[in-house]
Amino acid sequence: MMPHADHRPMTAREAADLVGGKLEGDPSILLSGVAGLREAEAGQVAYLEDPRYAPLLATTRASLVILAPGVPSPKGRSINVLRTERPGAAFSRLVEVFAPPPLRFAPGAHPSALVASSAKVHPSASIQAHAVIEDGVEVGERTVVGAGCYLGRESRVGNDGLLYPRVTIRERCRLGDRVILHSGVVIGADGFGYEFAEGRYVKVPQVGFVQVDDDVEIGANSTVDRGRFGRTWIQRGVKIDNLVQIAHNVVIGENTAIAAQAGISGSVQIGRMVRVAGQVGTVGHITIGDGATLMAQSGIHRDVAKGATVFGYPAQEQSEAMRTYGALRRLPQMIERVRKLEKQVAEALKRLAS
Amino acid sequence: MMPHADHRPMTAREAADLVGGKLEGDPSILLSGVAGLREAEAGQVAYLEDPRYAPLLATTRASLVILAPGVPSPKGRSINVLRTERPGAAFSRLVEVFAPPPLRFAPGAHPSALVASSAKVHPSASIQAHAVIEDGVEVGERTVVGAGCYLGRESRVGNDGLLYPRVTIRERCRLGDRVILHSGVVIGADGFGYEFAEGRYVKVPQVGFVQVDDDVEIGANSTVDRGRFGRTWIQRGVKIDNLVQIAHNVVIGENTAIAAQAGISGSVQIGRMVRVAGQVGTVGHITIGDGATLMAQSGIHRDVAKGATVFGYPAQEQSEAMRTYGALRRLPQMIERVRKLEKQVAEALKRLAS
Amino acid sequence: MMPHADHRPMTAREAADLVGGKLEGDPSILLSGVAGLREAEAGQVAYLEDPRYAPLLATTRASLVILAPGVPSPKGRSINVLRTERPGAAFSRLVEVFAPPPLRFAPGAHPSALVASSAKVHPSASIQAHAVIEDGVEVGERTVVGAGCYLGRESRVGNDGLLYPRVTIRERCRLGDRVILHSGVVIGADGFGYEFAEGRYVKVPQVGFVQVDDDVEIGANSTVDRGRFGRTWIQRGVKIDNLVQIAHNVVIGENTAIAAQAGISGSVQIGRMVRVAGQVGTVGHITIGDGATLMAQSGIHRDVAKGATVFGYPAQEQSEAMRTYGALRRLPQMIERVRKLEKQVAEALKRLAS
Repeated sequence: MMPHADHRPMTAREAADLVGGKLEGDPSILLSGVAGLREAEAGQVAYLEDPRYAPLLATTRASLVILAPGVPSPKGRSINVLRTERPGAAFSRLVEVFAPPPLRFAPGAHPSALVASSAKVHPSASIQAHAVIEDGVEVGERTVVGAGCYLGRESRVGNDGLLYPRVTIRERCRLGDRVILHSGVVIGADGFGYEFAEGRYVKVPQVGFVQVDDDVEIGANSTVDRGRFGRTWIQRGVKIDNLVQIAHNVVIGENTAIAAQAGISGSVQIGRMVRVAGQVGTVGHITIGDGATLMAQSGIHRDVAKGATVFGYPAQEQSEAMRTYGALRRLPQMIERVRKLEKQVAEALKRLAS
Repeated sequence: MMPHADHRPMTAREAADLVGGKLEGDPSILLSGVAGLREAEAGQVAYLEDPRYAPLLATTRASLVILAPGVPSPKGRSINVLRTERPGAAFSRLVEVFAPPPLRFAPGAHPSALVASSAKVHPSASIQAHAVIEDGVEVGERTVVGAGCYLGRESRVGNDGLLYPRVTIRERCRLGDRVILHSGVVIGADGFGYEFAEGRYVKVPQVGFVQVDDDVEIGANSTVDRGRFGRTWIQRGVKIDNLVQIAHNVVIGENTAIAAQAGISGSVQIGRMVRVAGQVGTVGHITIGDGATLMAQSGIHRDVAKGATVFGYPAQEQSEAMRTYGALRRLPQMIERVRKLEKQVAEALKRLAS
Repeated sequence: MMPHADHRPMTAREAADLVGGKLEGDPSILLSGVAGLREAEAGQVAYLEDPRYAPLLATTRASLVILAPGVPSPKGRSINVLRTERPGAAFSRLVEVFAPPPLRFAPGAHPSALVASSAKVHPSASIQAHAVIEDGVEVGERTVVGAGCYLGRESRVGNDGLLYPRVTIRERCRLGDRVILHSGVVIGADGFGYEFAEGRYVKVPQVGFVQVDDDVEIGANSTVDRGRFGRTWIQRGVKIDNLVQIAHNVVIGENTAIAAQAGISGSVQIGRMVRVAGQVGTVGHITIGDGATLMAQSGIHRDVAKGATVFGYPAQEQSEAMRTYGALRRLPQMIERVRKLEKQVAEALKRLAS
């Protein structure tokens, strides 16, 4: 099974002309698509950038492989090679050429969509089938609201937004321009807040909202809770992967990236350009400094300094954590050494006493 | 950007009269909303309860800050202060006053909703756009079924329920009164059960159901699987955060709270008043005693006693875990000390031998 | 509250005749349903297979209990017992008899479903309320597309598929035969890929697709991202639990099972018959060998060999990990022992020096 190839085939020569670089091999071979080295079939272009995959050069069925200048061709077989300084970028260019055309959505509201009369939907926006747009909602220019999306009362989506099918935006939440939300995202559910009184949990009203700034993308089935009061705030350029939890009143600084299944607890302040790896968890009410890196699965229980890299459960600064976890692996052997020492010392003390 | 302020502004004096407490400063200053200390603008009320935030008193722009009697006012600046024993409670009262009015839903079914003729939906219930109510469903008084919700055959929702948009309830599941389900919740999907036979997994039929008792709240995109047979049972007053997984035949006792991204494996029995922190995971078939606390990210691999607090991967009783993880941090230094001991002992033994 | 009992009651004798085995007790007692030992009421059948639950025999209210030949009946009370070599299998047979009849879905498209004129939907398929089937989609024989499902352009679902309500399948993704997707599943959302350039993240186009082979089942609210190019590939017989994340270009081999909340990072290759336990996380671009077992919550940071069992954070081979974590528990006591050694050695050295 191959990726679609909506572009007509091109020759290796045409590909080289398009992306630049030096061709080694048959310039007339026909290319009809792109693939990874491992999966490529005859007629497809692949590339190598990560040297770990170099052994695949010996077995790939790709008709053309893009390589950096220094990388040796495989021994004992002749493959067609395109040499260029940045194989990944050249490949990306060909991916675009061969990719199926991006989906287009006609402006206007599908007849099955329900748009409240008080909503202000720009005529260039596309409201897909069965979407529900409540009272007072605003939808900007060229924004696509996918099938079955729900936009709660007085919520607002800016220009050039792309909401995939089945996104839920609760009342009064606000999205900037060029925001992409993947299917199943829930923006503005209630924060998790209760007071225990008279033998039961009493719900603390969650009357704030969520503000999502320009150029944010949020992955499938992720959840961003509304503020208890005030806002939960996802700043410009933030990228969030799938199944991520952002609790009430969290602030996430510009261009921070959060990988899948991470969870950010209530009122945490994350700086700019922070990298949060997969399955990281944080306690509430802490601050993560600009440019910090939280490594995968770490448990963050206190503030993290600007630029720091932390790792572990509980998390430590990286070099410290590496020492700790390195030592942990040597621990069983250490215990043997201590046992031996105990015997030797007992023996020595015995001899000293005699 | 400020939270909505649907209430007309009030004076600091009026606020003090409303919530009680002693005013220090200008009683005539106008208040139009609430905010956190950090985010507050002129015209807003903030409060301080957690002493970690005391430094914000020096910089907040809030027009009035609610403080406990003992807390010193900031040095070198004059702010308006309202003194009261419980600043959080006083603030919550003002949050309610200034909050936008809660959403109201008209009774009856939206024309786009599909309600099976055999379903019994109370006339005071509100069935929103594109909801689907299958055969034999019962929906109680004043319950709101949000846009695009799905209620499978013979499922049952009690009185005063609130199902936010895009909730799925599979066939034969039963919800009590005052149950709140947030968007994306899936109640009653099949449990994860297979038998491996003749080279492949054969599905074990999952013919039970989910029972959710009164006053339960479940967060966005959480999943509660139906029993293999019998029920998965969420008892009265349980509160569950976002993206939580509850497997088949789990029982969760009254007033237990489960934070985001925790996962409870099949047939686990959790007692009453248990606190399960974020990203905790459990193995199947264990029992967690009443009042236990499972700290964040812990891996629970065996029973937890009543009232115990456990932590760690694998989890230990808290004091033990604190010793373990404290020791872990000292481990690299310990290894140095053992090395030094080895040298000294070798030296001592050499001298003893000579 | 009891499971439905759609079957008429049967006698213990009839049950024994149906499933085989030797009856001890009253053959005429009437049975109307099945339950677990703990929950069973009079009139229900239960069974015991896991010896941990044997103490429940003393208190169960079940009218009949299925036991293996060797298991002693409870002392001091007389219960009706059915003896058989495989109590679980016998019980499963009775579960099926007493289970409510499986849901049936009439062929054809519900009037509220939107099926593009260019879609090829087999007449025996059932397209439920509010489902959206875009241009060029293919749906095979007898496949059920649940209420509110979304099938993007040119996506394909084979025969005998079962898509529960609110599943999203993005454009060009392909599902084989007998695929079961639970509510909230998102197939084919964009992979998480950006290049950081000129102070901001630039989205890397995600133009591939997802291929799901025959006999795959995927749990509620799980997400499978499309390939950056080429495919993300879930091979035949794979079983995936709830809230699992499968990133772009991952390949999962036949009959591999992945438990709830696990996360598989981009381009990971998982072999056949692998078992991935709950909340496991992996880094990207690694290979997990056939038949490997990744234990719960492990952090997998490098390749795992065929048949290996790994555990820990970071993960180690099981026997090594068991030693490591066993040693970790003894660490606080070890530190005491090292302190004692230090004192003894200092004393010994002092005496040697004197």
